[in-house]
Amino acid sequence: MNMCQASVLAEFEAPLQAREFPLPDRLEPGAALVRTEMAGICGTDVHLWKGQLPIQLPIILGHETVGRIAQLGEGLERDWAGQPLKLGDRVTWNSTTSCGQCYYCAEKRQPTRCPQRRAYGIGHRCDQPPHLLGGYAEFHYLRPRSNIFKLPDDLPNEAVVGAGCALITAIHGIERTGISWRDNVVVQGAGPVGIAALAVAKSAGAARVLVIGGPPHRLEMAKRFGADEVIDLDSIKDPAGRIAVVREKFGGYGADVVLECVGHPSAITEGMEMCRDGGKYLVLGHYCDAGTVAFNPHIITRKQLQVFGSWSSEPRHLKAALEFLRERSREFPFASMVTHRFAIDQANAALATTARWESAKSVIVP
Amino acid sequence: MNMCQASVLAEFEAPLQAREFPLPDRLEPGAALVRTEMAGICGTDVHLWKGQLPIQLPIILGHETVGRIAQLGEGLERDWAGQPLKLGDRVTWNSTTSCGQCYYCAEKRQPTRCPQRRAYGIGHRCDQPPHLLGGYAEFHYLRPRSNIFKLPDDLPNEAVVGAGCALITAIHGIERTGISWRDNVVVQGAGPVGIAALAVAKSAGAARVLVIGGPPHRLEMAKRFGADEVIDLDSIKDPAGRIAVVREKFGGYGADVVLECVGHPSAITEGMEMCRDGGKYLVLGHYCDAGTVAFNPHIITRKQLQVFGSWSSEPRHLKAALEFLRERSREFPFASMVTHRFAIDQANAALATTARWESAKSVIVP
Amino acid sequence: MNMCQASVLAEFEAPLQAREFPLPDRLEPGAALVRTEMAGICGTDVHLWKGQLPIQLPIILGHETVGRIAQLGEGLERDWAGQPLKLGDRVTWNSTTSCGQCYYCAEKRQPTRCPQRRAYGIGHRCDQPPHLLGGYAEFHYLRPRSNIFKLPDDLPNEAVVGAGCALITAIHGIERTGISWRDNVVVQGAGPVGIAALAVAKSAGAARVLVIGGPPHRLEMAKRFGADEVIDLDSIKDPAGRIAVVREKFGGYGADVVLECVGHPSAITEGMEMCRDGGKYLVLGHYCDAGTVAFNPHIITRKQLQVFGSWSSEPRHLKAALEFLRERSREFPFASMVTHRFAIDQANAALATTARWESAKSVIVP
Amino acid sequence: MNMCQASVLAEFEAPLQAREFPLPDRLEPGAALVRTEMAGICGTDVHLWKGQLPIQLPIILGHETVGRIAQLGEGLERDWAGQPLKLGDRVTWNSTTSCGQCYYCAEKRQPTRCPQRRAYGIGHRCDQPPHLLGGYAEFHYLRPRSNIFKLPDDLPNEAVVGAGCALITAIHGIERTGISWRDNVVVQGAGPVGIAALAVAKSAGAARVLVIGGPPHRLEMAKRFGADEVIDLDSIKDPAGRIAVVREKFGGYGADVVLECVGHPSAITEGMEMCRDGGKYLVLGHYCDAGTVAFNPHIITRKQLQVFGSWSSEPRHLKAALEFLRERSREFPFASMVTHRFAIDQANAALATTARWESAKSVIVP
Repeated sequence: MNMCQASVLAEFEAPLQAREFPLPDRLEPGAALVRTEMAGICGTDVHLWKGQLPIQLPIILGHETVGRIAQLGEGLERDWAGQPLKLGDRVTWNSTTSCGQCYYCAEKRQPTRCPQRRAYGIGHRCDQPPHLLGGYAEFHYLRPRSNIFKLPDDLPNEAVVGAGCALITAIHGIERTGISWRDNVVVQGAGPVGIAALAVAKSAGAARVLVIGGPPHRLEMAKRFGADEVIDLDSIKDPAGRIAVVREKFGGYGADVVLECVGHPSAITEGMEMCRDGGKYLVLGHYCDAGTVAFNPHIITRKQLQVFGSWSSEPRHLKAALEFLRERSREFPFASMVTHRFAIDQANAALATTARWESAKSVIVP
Repeated sequence: MNMCQASVLAEFEAPLQAREFPLPDRLEPGAALVRTEMAGICGTDVHLWKGQLPIQLPIILGHETVGRIAQLGEGLERDWAGQPLKLGDRVTWNSTTSCGQCYYCAEKRQPTRCPQRRAYGIGHRCDQPPHLLGGYAEFHYLRPRSNIFKLPDDLPNEAVVGAGCALITAIHGIERTGISWRDNVVVQGAGPVGIAALAVAKSAGAARVLVIGGPPHRLEMAKRFGADEVIDLDSIKDPAGRIAVVREKFGGYGADVVLECVGHPSAITEGMEMCRDGGKYLVLGHYCDAGTVAFNPHIITRKQLQVFGSWSSEPRHLKAALEFLRERSREFPFASMVTHRFAIDQANAALATTARWESAKSVIVP
Repeated sequence: MNMCQASVLAEFEAPLQAREFPLPDRLEPGAALVRTEMAGICGTDVHLWKGQLPIQLPIILGHETVGRIAQLGEGLERDWAGQPLKLGDRVTWNSTTSCGQCYYCAEKRQPTRCPQRRAYGIGHRCDQPPHLLGGYAEFHYLRPRSNIFKLPDDLPNEAVVGAGCALITAIHGIERTGISWRDNVVVQGAGPVGIAALAVAKSAGAARVLVIGGPPHRLEMAKRFGADEVIDLDSIKDPAGRIAVVREKFGGYGADVVLECVGHPSAITEGMEMCRDGGKYLVLGHYCDAGTVAFNPHIITRKQLQVFGSWSSEPRHLKAALEFLRERSREFPFASMVTHRFAIDQANAALATTARWESAKSVIVP
Repeated sequence: MNMCQASVLAEFEAPLQAREFPLPDRLEPGAALVRTEMAGICGTDVHLWKGQLPIQLPIILGHETVGRIAQLGEGLERDWAGQPLKLGDRVTWNSTTSCGQCYYCAEKRQPTRCPQRRAYGIGHRCDQPPHLLGGYAEFHYLRPRSNIFKLPDDLPNEAVVGAGCALITAIHGIERTGISWRDNVVVQGAGPVGIAALAVAKSAGAARVLVIGGPPHRLEMAKRFGADEVIDLDSIKDPAGRIAVVREKFGGYGADVVLECVGHPSAITEGMEMCRDGGKYLVLGHYCDAGTVAFNPHIITRKQLQVFGSWSSEPRHLKAALEFLRERSREFPFASMVTHRFAIDQANAALATTARWESAKSVIVP
């Protein structure tokens, strides 16, 4: 029996454990087995490791993965976009699949809220077959109805994993919010989601994009991605000061659109004040429950704001993301975000660099 | 010199004072003088009386007024909708006028956020000519560029003042939010804005509208206006219980649209939980700053909500409101909301019935 | 072997033929067999009979059908909305199923343009098993993945079939167009789609709805469904005259929204002139290719119109339609549209009454 | 009395005439007198010269003009955006002013359809004072309430006039249509409006933009403005061939958005076939009435298209245009479109180069 190395989260806040799992004897119809080429470490993985999301252990982390098809289940002949699939093809995939039938999928067209969704690397225990449902492993099992995308040869692993789930999250969120031609935009946060939101905003018609965040190496990254202005949180420590600067930059009124990519509740009260009246605010960074903030609803009425939330993404966003990464790599060098590489047995170190914000993006190359 | 009786707010939380003001000798071009027929007491007047909004005293309260034209300034020949105006015509008007030229009026098309707006009955001191810029008086001065609407004979004062600024506020807010055909709607609050929001929602395509509020006489009013369900706050005192009932009424998911017409910050955290995922939430009741609430932004991301604010209204909303009041009076008997009438020298008593929620609508008939 | 009577279109413009087909021995997993209770004759059936749509013969016509479940295939346990299904349940269904996977279904969210769609009563030959894929028969076979809806007891067959595909077509079209609160609306056409569009417009927030069409018995029907005005095509024979009347009714400008439910190309040039500038026009009646009209595109630029097309409908529209029919039967008495009933062997006569516009709705009761 | 040279259209299809007009003695309050620095020749001027639009002669043509303020009327202290104005300032302006009060301006928010609008260079006779209401003259009179914009020093006349009314027309049209992030776009036409639509589409989020038109020098211009593909009308003479190429370029389905910038009615039937199902089509090029085309409305229903018209533009579009021209001059070199310059007494030659499509943009430099 062939065995596969994996790094397993068996206990919160404890080191990941190296384990071996058997490769499946045979695949279900519509399934696939993929040899992992690169797996991204997402900030969410740090939250999962800390036990901040309600999951069941043990799991193999990793929901941003590229690999090559090692086995194809019966009937799996084409990828999500209709391209033929064969052994050896390099692919990536959405971490989740919606059912397509339920109230949220079919009646309300909110497939990201389908109750059937369970994410690779988050929602599948690895102590039951087929075990290999996360990226931190030599092989990845793709269940039937997974949303698989064949990668073109000129799109490197680094770009796909460097963009990771941050890019598709940003694409979905900005789609919901809507950026009009020549809108002035503020991005709160310079982490992966913030950088991705910057790239999407710049390419979606924004006039000027100002990024607020840190540390300096991330603000440098923001400049390389075309930020028109950056504000270092450490240089203006007072929210009121930052609000004043943003308003001054944008005609005394504030930005047309503010994109929250931070995840701290206090960002909301600061960010809404950065909107001009009648402006838009996207709450994108609150994938996790980070607690409450003292919030005054009067601001929403008085400034007649529009506030949007967005959860995860749909396969069509991943399709658009892959085309975008390929066509706009010069302006938006997502591949350069992969700054730290680790072998599969160094997964703990990989998580740590992400947790300490040392890397732009850490990846595992099994 | 002709004199005019008025009721003046000269000191916060002190009784209104009866004063006399001279009628203007002659009008500016484009202005008008109107003999007041009916002036509404708005909940905002109570807030103003308590000093909860930043205004300068003394003022004549009253921003929901009907009167008859007593004098017409030079060049004022037609009302906002193009109808000819003459002495004796019965009219109402918007309490504010936007400049039409500024960043908010012309560039961003948010005229309700025009910095030039000052409202009759709120933003004009009465110790300077032309003095009579509020409804609690025998006469009302309409400044040049006021947005005046001639009233058809079959539209009674009671309907116009009974609907008051609540109806146009609701129309504007629901326009921004958008109700789709067959949406299920929750209205939080059974005060004037809540009843108006109910009427607009019912006539804008909602499938079912559930109203949460009190006291019982207001919930009876809600039923007369077509509420499909009502929840008495006193019968389910626990927010979690109310959330559970709403979800159960609406397929286990919640409402497509929730309209906040309360003004207490805690309504926001309760109301967002009443939305289905991907639903809409309107923060309409927070005209005043009522302080903060502990708010968790995670709900906006996770439920991918759309949240809207709306401030005041535009003249086109008043035009639509007047047509609506006239054509749909059978289903939405706004005239019946006028339950308490007072003479001009009883203005204190009028305010008090409003403050104590005893009346549906109190009015002054000078 | 059990046999089933059906009425077959074997040759264009020739009488339908009575034929017998075997009932299926056993059902595919997910399929169902339904005993037909009522099948509607749609105007499209007349077009099909005349050979005006590209179909393959022979077929059993009928795509608006109600029946009771006679057999359930393995695994078919719930209807589209999640209600449990059992033998004897009365059901209706969408005539088509989209694949959910393709470019149009998943990437562009236009499932009605899915290339996999084939409609019951239109797109399935009956000379191959399972034969019974149309409504003009004693039994109807529902293929796996059909979108089935269990009917509540208080929703009569007449309402469901009387509304037919016209109602869901109108719901979809008006969803795409958008009717704002207090819009003035013109409906061109008083056939089933026009009456349905009237009902949806009235309940979706329209201020006034004017219906243009004929013959008189249909305009009477329009009045019963709440039309605020009707114009008989025979009373104003000149398009210019009708345009003038519509403009005069609506402030001299025209309607905010015009809904074309006619199917004659000349309706387009007439109808766009009935829109106010900046108004909306829905081309809904052109399910068939009825040829060209001399059209001047200048009108779209000059009047800055918004023009929408809409094709067929989605299951969620049928769900909303069934709830609407049940809850609003007093205002919109669709059941009363069923004016002519025929046995299965009178299908030719049924088609003829529809073709000659003698009935509001003809139905077959096998 | 000071006199001013102007070029006058006194008779359709006859040479423009050199005439002298007196400069105004004194200005109305709010008016200005401007010394013309550069006046653009628009394709519309050719239509006007040919008598294809309903205007009254004689007029001074020219509605795309830059000049320096020579006199300021009382009370004119700031430009549209609030910048202070003084003698010698270089300015441009909208050719029209809407009233701000009427049904279209205030109630329906379609100010470009305000019946009060009369355009400089089109709608004002020059045989009555103040005479100088067009660009082909040494001086230009700006009436009170004109929408004036002060130009920054780093924005050359060539950019402003090179972009001309084409750019603001395109901005408005594309605002109405909406381009989503990563939409594929076709621009029909490579004239000034087509080039401007290309620039706006590219900067508004389009993935790929394909331009169809000619002659070759204009397609070269399109490439310099970033067209991803161009199709020369002379190389594929058959509409069906062009439709096939567009579909093939865009996944076999067609473009998400097609922008008509041609003005020939046949472009409409061709262009709609270039849309994918559910796509958008903008009819932008039909400012003039160019007659009819045989049109089949079935395409709008079947492909469930959205079709938009757009007329002229608002001041806020000119504000955005000027910022765009200044900030994005490298990618979109509108200044380079000014290929032919003429003195005021060569206005006939200037018109001729435009009529014969010899120039990208001809201008008069008085």
